[in-house]
Amino acid sequence: MNVLIVFAHNEPRSFNAAMKDEALRVLEGEGHQVQVSDLYAMNFNPVASAADFGSRANPDYLVYALEQRHAFNTGTLAPDIAAELEKVKWADLILFNFPIYWYGMPAILKGWVDRVFVSGFCYGGRRIYDQGGLKGKKAMLAVSLGGQAHMFGPEGIHGELEVLLQPILRGMLGYVGCTVLPPYVAWHVPYVSDAERAEILDGYRRHLLSLDARAPLRFPSLADYDQNLRPKAAVD
Amino acid sequence: MNVLIVFAHNEPRSFNAAMKDEALRVLEGEGHQVQVSDLYAMNFNPVASAADFGSRANPDYLVYALEQRHAFNTGTLAPDIAAELEKVKWADLILFNFPIYWYGMPAILKGWVDRVFVSGFCYGGRRIYDQGGLKGKKAMLAVSLGGQAHMFGPEGIHGELEVLLQPILRGMLGYVGCTVLPPYVAWHVPYVSDAERAEILDGYRRHLLSLDARAPLRFPSLADYDQNLRPKAAVD
Repeated sequence: MNVLIVFAHNEPRSFNAAMKDEALRVLEGEGHQVQVSDLYAMNFNPVASAADFGSRANPDYLVYALEQRHAFNTGTLAPDIAAELEKVKWADLILFNFPIYWYGMPAILKGWVDRVFVSGFCYGGRRIYDQGGLKGKKAMLAVSLGGQAHMFGPEGIHGELEVLLQPILRGMLGYVGCTVLPPYVAWHVPYVSDAERAEILDGYRRHLLSLDARAPLRFPSLADYDQNLRPKAAVD
Repeated sequence: MNVLIVFAHNEPRSFNAAMKDEALRVLEGEGHQVQVSDLYAMNFNPVASAADFGSRANPDYLVYALEQRHAFNTGTLAPDIAAELEKVKWADLILFNFPIYWYGMPAILKGWVDRVFVSGFCYGGRRIYDQGGLKGKKAMLAVSLGGQAHMFGPEGIHGELEVLLQPILRGMLGYVGCTVLPPYVAWHVPYVSDAERAEILDGYRRHLLSLDARAPLRFPSLADYDQNLRPKAAVD
């Protein structure tokens, strides 16, 4: 497999960095090819703007997704976006490795998605979910959290983690057609002992070695929706 | 009221910009004070990093939230963060005006939250939800979407919009203690006629004039949880 690790942490010696290094070691040990996009080290620009396009379909009025399509089709995406998109095309599995900030991605990673998951290639029109542009690729989150497991779930104070991660799991990764594997969650990382952290890291290693055994999350199938994306069974 | 509009769109003539201008006009017309943080115009930096702190609790190892607390307490937050935090303190109502990107905020706005909602002031320990640091302030989303209303909801292909917005509504705004009003959603904006857009804008005006009549969203009350944030009624 070709594996792309998209990694976002602002402390090079962080636990997330250890997870990234462990994934690299384990996956290469299994004979896979691995590339890492270390967004902080790359000083990646997360701001979607007019500067992302070398030519414009409409130079007077920016509709970001429409210009993505134009720039993709004309080969005029900004070089940093084009380089990341090449890695996405190359990858069979994309790992997103980051600390949860406000129940989502740190902005530097959110902006990687905003800019790199371009309309016209990754999705567009009815090319979403099981017809998405990244169909056939796997994706997985590997995240750390300050909170503890008991704070999540139907009775937990913060509600269900999988609900809070829906915009990512479904809205981004499922939407573009990836086969989304269950996330690996490292709980309470800043507050646990070194021994516990070593155990969490070992859990990640075992998780990575058993990806094939994990049932992917389920998302809509376009066959169940009509041309206007209304459910076929619905009575209007 | 003091109103802060946090605005994020990369096209100055966009519909979102028209919403921002309309809010400014309507709210000032009602006698409120309004400030706008126009993140693209400000070239706001959304990347949470070590550069955000003028002094460090631990110069050797960055734990972002811990350094936020230290920098807040010692008055050494980066000037751009400190300036935004002053606006947050000043505001009775914060409006977040943005186009939905991947079921969330554009990265430039996500990073505003990452950097400005500082630990130690906006939240910390048990100072969350109804005990949050921004208790007493109201917050509301005013968003545009490419999708149509029928694509959302229990039967909609994308699921329920309110579920997809949970990380923002609950995980950010409810978490820091804001009274969160229901979002105003401008559907299908890039694809509708000028007349329809005028109608959506008028709906926003009416929404803004009737904020007091809107029931806020409900989030946990800390009184229902013990010291470890376990539900008090739970049997372990």
